[in-house]
Amino acid sequence: MNDVMRLLTQHRSIRKFTDDPVDQSTVEVCVQAGQAAATSSFIQACTVIQVSAGETRDKLAEWAGGQAYVSSAPVFMVFCADMKRHALACDMHQADMLSGYTEQFLTASIDCALFAQNVVTAAQSEGLGICYIGGLRNNPQAVSDALGLPDLVYPVFGLCLGYPDQNPETKPRLPLSVVLKQDTYDQTGDEATIREYDQHVRHYYETRTGGNKSMTWSEQISGMLQKEARPHMLPFLQERGFLKR
Amino acid sequence: MNDVMRLLTQHRSIRKFTDDPVDQSTVEVCVQAGQAAATSSFIQACTVIQVSAGETRDKLAEWAGGQAYVSSAPVFMVFCADMKRHALACDMHQADMLSGYTEQFLTASIDCALFAQNVVTAAQSEGLGICYIGGLRNNPQAVSDALGLPDLVYPVFGLCLGYPDQNPETKPRLPLSVVLKQDTYDQTGDEATIREYDQHVRHYYETRTGGNKSMTWSEQISGMLQKEARPHMLPFLQERGFLKR
Repeated sequence: MNDVMRLLTQHRSIRKFTDDPVDQSTVEVCVQAGQAAATSSFIQACTVIQVSAGETRDKLAEWAGGQAYVSSAPVFMVFCADMKRHALACDMHQADMLSGYTEQFLTASIDCALFAQNVVTAAQSEGLGICYIGGLRNNPQAVSDALGLPDLVYPVFGLCLGYPDQNPETKPRLPLSVVLKQDTYDQTGDEATIREYDQHVRHYYETRTGGNKSMTWSEQISGMLQKEARPHMLPFLQERGFLKR
Repeated sequence: MNDVMRLLTQHRSIRKFTDDPVDQSTVEVCVQAGQAAATSSFIQACTVIQVSAGETRDKLAEWAGGQAYVSSAPVFMVFCADMKRHALACDMHQADMLSGYTEQFLTASIDCALFAQNVVTAAQSEGLGICYIGGLRNNPQAVSDALGLPDLVYPVFGLCLGYPDQNPETKPRLPLSVVLKQDTYDQTGDEATIREYDQHVRHYYETRTGGNKSMTWSEQISGMLQKEARPHMLPFLQERGFLKR
């Protein structure tokens, strides 16, 4: 395993940052690393809104479910899937844009994720810690209004950046045999493997919380999936011009 | 800029590979680097199907629009968004799973993208070249059938891996000012910047193709967006149990 692989496998989310500021030049070089990621048919559909500390940031933290580090992180960015730029390209050539396709929503969202993961790796290579904030999707309309996002742009997730002031363990992942399959999808053996893995996860939570949390992976997942999953997302996205066909 | 950032910014897609085989241990360590990426609420919704060379691979190459390197690359993987594993977790706990939410489709797809981008970075750190294959979505039903994907699993994209037998230039990306914005989304100035960028892209294509292709970014995008974008995706995904609400 080389240094880059070691960096990647040592990832854990950081939710507590030192007061050390992050140079804007570091932010910019990280975003440029993000831009260098592969982009579907060259669409480059990711726009990053860097949000300075203050009122808007505090509101974002609240909408994300009261995640205080959204407010206090030295750097906070919102990754937006952006087809408005493509509407502009169409205007520049008097072209009628066919929008609203599920495929476009998917490629724009994936573009953002590939881009963001490069930003994350670049940041971590500089000793920064990160935390993705999917909680912005609790209230995507309010987030969009606060950032002035036009139609054809939506906030996919946020990202906190800063120098770590904590050193959590990495969280154990599913065994490789469950995740990497040969030639066909075959679930044989997965249940037994997940039952074994469940005990590692239980141990991880118990150790990390001094026994306060004791939960397996399958318990956590099955608990979560008995609840609605942000049912406002489909009408919100359609209203913004996505997922209409 | 450190070594990791240099690695990230030097990315270009590789479509021609040497005959040198890729050790399976290298594939596995890359996939483990993928697993280490952040995962929304710990869902770990990515399953990778590694497809050996042969008949299935040839068919995938054809369905992807006749991309021969899908067939000939030393390693080919299909990244699948997988909620079937979560159905299993629910079965293990006699829980009724609420599926079909747009939010679940989005988090599972993003999980795959974050995972894949780590695989890509890990592979490139070992001197491997890569090419994402979105073309599998030309015919996602045939791909799903060939790989035996059950409901609640869909092929997001493929990935070719191998040692590069070509050395293409990196493709120029949009200027940073278009992509990184402060506090609010503001398109002022973007059109002028894109017009300038367009000339870099034209120059890139002209140089690379000996003058055979001469196209700007905005021309390419506006041309693409006048056509339908895989209109089969929405009914396909709904049929597989996604995007139903």
